[in-house]
Amino acid sequence: MSSEKHTRYMKRCFELALKGSGNVSPNPLVGAVIVKNEKIISEGWHDKFGGAHAEAAAVRNSKVNLTGSTLYCNLEPCCHTDKKTPPCVPLIIQEGIKEVIICNIDPNPKVAGKGIKQLVEAGIKVSTGILEDEGIEINKFYFKFIRTGLPYVTLKIAQTIDGKITSAVGKQTWITGEESAVYVHRLRSIYDAVLAGANTINADDPKFTVRKTEGRNPKKIIIDGALSINENAGVLQDSMKLETIIFCGSQTAQRKVNRLSKRSISLIKMETEKNRIELNHILKKIGEMNISSILVEGGADIFSQFISSSLFDELDIIIAPVIFGKGLDSFKSPQMPQTAVKAQNFLGNDYHIILTR
Amino acid sequence: MSSEKHTRYMKRCFELALKGSGNVSPNPLVGAVIVKNEKIISEGWHDKFGGAHAEAAAVRNSKVNLTGSTLYCNLEPCCHTDKKTPPCVPLIIQEGIKEVIICNIDPNPKVAGKGIKQLVEAGIKVSTGILEDEGIEINKFYFKFIRTGLPYVTLKIAQTIDGKITSAVGKQTWITGEESAVYVHRLRSIYDAVLAGANTINADDPKFTVRKTEGRNPKKIIIDGALSINENAGVLQDSMKLETIIFCGSQTAQRKVNRLSKRSISLIKMETEKNRIELNHILKKIGEMNISSILVEGGADIFSQFISSSLFDELDIIIAPVIFGKGLDSFKSPQMPQTAVKAQNFLGNDYHIILTR
Repeated sequence: MSSEKHTRYMKRCFELALKGSGNVSPNPLVGAVIVKNEKIISEGWHDKFGGAHAEAAAVRNSKVNLTGSTLYCNLEPCCHTDKKTPPCVPLIIQEGIKEVIICNIDPNPKVAGKGIKQLVEAGIKVSTGILEDEGIEINKFYFKFIRTGLPYVTLKIAQTIDGKITSAVGKQTWITGEESAVYVHRLRSIYDAVLAGANTINADDPKFTVRKTEGRNPKKIIIDGALSINENAGVLQDSMKLETIIFCGSQTAQRKVNRLSKRSISLIKMETEKNRIELNHILKKIGEMNISSILVEGGADIFSQFISSSLFDELDIIIAPVIFGKGLDSFKSPQMPQTAVKAQNFLGNDYHIILTR
Repeated sequence: MSSEKHTRYMKRCFELALKGSGNVSPNPLVGAVIVKNEKIISEGWHDKFGGAHAEAAAVRNSKVNLTGSTLYCNLEPCCHTDKKTPPCVPLIIQEGIKEVIICNIDPNPKVAGKGIKQLVEAGIKVSTGILEDEGIEINKFYFKFIRTGLPYVTLKIAQTIDGKITSAVGKQTWITGEESAVYVHRLRSIYDAVLAGANTINADDPKFTVRKTEGRNPKKIIIDGALSINENAGVLQDSMKLETIIFCGSQTAQRKVNRLSKRSISLIKMETEKNRIELNHILKKIGEMNISSILVEGGADIFSQFISSSLFDELDIIIAPVIFGKGLDSFKSPQMPQTAVKAQNFLGNDYHIILTR
C-alpha cells in the first residue's frame, strides 16, 4: 500500500484519538482505523479513562469479518494485563487481522515493543514510524509523564508588547482579546489541571473554568507557601471543590488549614524555604497524583520560578497589541533555557507564539 | 464615470507617486494619470526634489492632444509660484483638460484649495476625496511637516518577546532575522534621516546605510549631549560625511568639536540640562533643516524619551521569537500615550507590529 494511503489513514487515527482529549489522562490518546479492500470498515478511539482502548473499540464497532484486514493505530497496541481493560494484542490476533500500521512505539516499559513482538510472532506484518513526530505531539503529555513521572508543563503567559502582565502590581488588567480567551479555555479543557500562585488568585480572582468552549473543567492547583489565599476566592467556591489542591508550607496556620480542609479542598503541606516550596517537589507530587499535564496561568513570580529552574516544556505566549510603558514584567529569569519556535499565529488582534524546550 | 474606475486610476496614481519615495522630500509624493475615452493616455510622477511635478510630467509624456481628457492626481495641483518649478494649474487649463479627480487637498497654505478654485473658475469639473485615507498615508511625512514644521517620527524598535533590546547594557546583540533587516533598510531608503543616541553608536557601531535593498542612504542624526561619540565610529567614516549631524550640549569639549567639524560633520550645539537636550528643540531644528521624516533606531534611553514625551508618530516594532529573561528594556515610559494598531504581519520568523498615535 502506498505511503500516501498510510498517511491518510494515520491522520484519521489522529482525528479519532483527539476525540478523547481531556478525558483519558494519564492514558495516551489513541485512535484506530480498520481497512479492508482499500476501504475503512471500522473506527474506534479511547474515549475516556477506564473505557475501551481504540483498537478494541474499532473491533467492536465493525459490522464485517476482520480476517485479512489492516489495522492502523497511532500507538503500539498493548499487551500487558496490569490495567482496567483487557490487552489489545490477543484481540487483534484472534480477529485474523493480517497487518498492523503503527505511528509510535509505546514508551510504557510494560509495552515498549513487546506488543509488536507478539504481533510479529503471530505472523502479523507490522510497520511503525508513520507520521512519528505528529504522533509524539498529540501524546506529548503521555510521553513526558510515562518517561519521567512528571506532568507536562505549559506556561500560558498573556502580556503586552513591552512584556508586562499588569500595569501595577496587584492590579487586574484584562489585556488580550476574545479569540485568545476562547483559546485559553480550550487549553483548560485539555490540560489535567490549571496551576497558579496565591498572588494571582488574590489579585485576579480567576475561576479557571471552561466557559467559552465545550469541555470539562480542569483541576485547580494553587501554590501558596504562606497560605495567604483569600478564603472567598472564586476558585475555592465552585461545585468541584474536591478538584482543588493547595500546596502550602509546613509552617502555615493550622486553623486556616483546618477551615479549608473542612471544605473538601486538598491541602498538601510541603517543606519551604522563606515560604517558597521547591517547584520540582511540587511537580513530583502532582505526578504521583496521576496528573499528567498542567497549564500554568501565573503570576509573574510563578512564571519566573518555572522558567529560571527550567521546569517547563512549553511557553504559550499571547501578546496583546498594547504597551503599558511600566508595570510588572511577565517573568524574569537570570538564566534563560534555550527554546525553539513551535508555532506562531494570530488570535484575533493578538500575536500568539508557542516555544518549546 | 463609475467609482470603481476612479478607484482604479487613483491607485495607479499612488503607484506612480511612490516611485519618488525617498527622493522628493520635503515635497509630497505625487502621481498623475491622464485618461481619454476610458484609456490611460499618459502618466507622470514627481521623481525628485527640484524635478517636474507629476501633472507636468504627465502632460509632457503625452503623445496625443489632451483636449477633453480627465486628469487624476493624488494631490491638489499647485497654483503658487514660490518654488522651483512653474505651477501646474495654468498648464492643466491651457491643455484643455476637462475634468480633474483629486485624492487629497494640499494642506500647504499656499495651495489649500486655491488650486481647485482656479480650476473650477476655468470651467473644469473637479472632484476630491477619492481614497483619501490611503493618500494621507502615502504622504504622511508631508502632511505632518507642512502642518507643524516638524518631521514625522517613527521609532523602529527590534526586541525580544520579553521586551529586551539587549541581554546586557552596552552589549550588541543582533536579534531579528534577515527579512527584518531588509525591511529596516527599505525604511532607511525612504526616511530622510536615521536618528540614534551616542550610546547606540558606541555600543553597536551601526552604519545606518542602505545595503540590503535598492535606494539612497539616509542622513544621520546623532543625539550626543556629552559629545561622547567614538571618533572612529563607522557612522562618521563614510563618504557622505556632510550628511551627518550631531546634536551636542553647549558645554562640550571645544577640542573634540573642532576635530569633528574639520571632518565636515555638522555639529549643532544645544542647551542641555544634565547633558540631556530637550527633544522638542531637536525636532524643531531638524524641521528647520527641511528634514521631514526621521527613523529613530535607538537606543533604549532615546526611545524612552520619545515615547514618554509623546513626540512620535509611529512605533514600528519587530519582535524576534527569542527570550532573554534579563537585560535592557527597549523603553520605559511612566505615561504611555494612547496608540492604535495600524498593521501586523510576520517578517520571516519575526513578528512585526506598527502602532500609530
